[in-house]
Amino acid sequence: MIEKIIQYQPIIILDSPQLGENIGAVARVMMNFGLFDLRIVNPRDGWPSSGAIAMAAGAEGILENAEIYDDYNKAISDIQVLYATTARKRNINKKLITPKESVQELANIKGKKAILFGPERTGITNQNIIMADRLISIQVNPEFSSINLAQSVGIWCYEWFSSQRLEVGGQKSGIATKSELESLFGHLERELDKSNFFKSPEKREKMIHNIRSMLLRAQLSGQEVRTLRGIIRSLTNGSD
Amino acid sequence: MIEKIIQYQPIIILDSPQLGENIGAVARVMMNFGLFDLRIVNPRDGWPSSGAIAMAAGAEGILENAEIYDDYNKAISDIQVLYATTARKRNINKKLITPKESVQELANIKGKKAILFGPERTGITNQNIIMADRLISIQVNPEFSSINLAQSVGIWCYEWFSSQRLEVGGQKSGIATKSELESLFGHLERELDKSNFFKSPEKREKMIHNIRSMLLRAQLSGQEVRTLRGIIRSLTNGSD
Repeated sequence: MIEKIIQYQPIIILDSPQLGENIGAVARVMMNFGLFDLRIVNPRDGWPSSGAIAMAAGAEGILENAEIYDDYNKAISDIQVLYATTARKRNINKKLITPKESVQELANIKGKKAILFGPERTGITNQNIIMADRLISIQVNPEFSSINLAQSVGIWCYEWFSSQRLEVGGQKSGIATKSELESLFGHLERELDKSNFFKSPEKREKMIHNIRSMLLRAQLSGQEVRTLRGIIRSLTNGSD
Repeated sequence: MIEKIIQYQPIIILDSPQLGENIGAVARVMMNFGLFDLRIVNPRDGWPSSGAIAMAAGAEGILENAEIYDDYNKAISDIQVLYATTARKRNINKKLITPKESVQELANIKGKKAILFGPERTGITNQNIIMADRLISIQVNPEFSSINLAQSVGIWCYEWFSSQRLEVGGQKSGIATKSELESLFGHLERELDKSNFFKSPEKREKMIHNIRSMLLRAQLSGQEVRTLRGIIRSLTNGSD
């Protein structure tokens, strides 16, 4: 038998959500953006929830198929890559990434991946954070940072769907892999070293960081990476 | 007296919204993303709305200051640039742009600008479309495209806020102007012409389109445009 590599879709996990209405709104926006796997840990108001069904507005199937857990650790036990979202700045030794950065990273991960959202009032717990591979933070108005749960899920799902639909020249084309991006960065940086672009070693590090983050932000496809390498080759007269 | 150029924030206009709860959720997510000016045309369930206040969850000030109109044309009479959102593909001779493209364009527009959202069930009308300078479409799962009104507003406001917060090397830096981008594109294309990058005139047009859309997607700041021009100059040994 040939073993297939399964490209899992991300699973949305809600830890201890309070309002059924929010869970229903989450299901609806997941379906808007082509995500279907929902896990719910300890919904405060019980399950099933008539409020959730009312707000799902056509996405009841996601609620019916949702997996309900009474324990957070059970809900994540089979997850290989776990990203957690947080609205707060925390004193923790984990880098905060944006939703856009998270979807770019996750697009290249083949295993079972999940995005965790904490309860409405308090957000994720320290226990949640310890188990997370990464923390995602949606940047908001610092003077009014309390964002509705379904809005957070919606923004993340929107970024995920957008990253999956990158089209190049009318054709769908996959997002570049980490190794394609590394080859591009290496190629560009070699050529910039050769042409004395960096004035000093200290500036070099900072500029390389800025150049990489600008290119990462574009969420390049594999084809676009090849185009950029062609451009570098052409501008440097074919050297590589 | 010195005349000041006022950089207006975008105004959110809801045409004939049905549920007060959705209007409240709109106010909340606007405030999350630093937008405060709301106009409401013909709210179906009357105004003020207790459902709206309940869902605003701290953003009641936006509801109190919202301008209420009984006529769509009055609501847009002082607007200089109007973008309308639509979920549907329509047989109209207007280009659909993404939320990301719309915020990039609008960031460079100094006048009074507004984003129009139609009612929950039917979306914007043909009358709305006729008056719009552009149509924004959020790409969704084609098999479940009915997105909640407040989610649509939330996604647009999220993109707006993200585009306003571009940071480069730790410092806030404004998004590049159209003329800075044009100079960058011109510079790159001149150098690619010189180095015979484009194999044929037909391919040239398509490749230029692809290169531009990839760079536009990165929402470059003015500083990043200068960095890219420095890179091109360095790779081509200082020619311009």
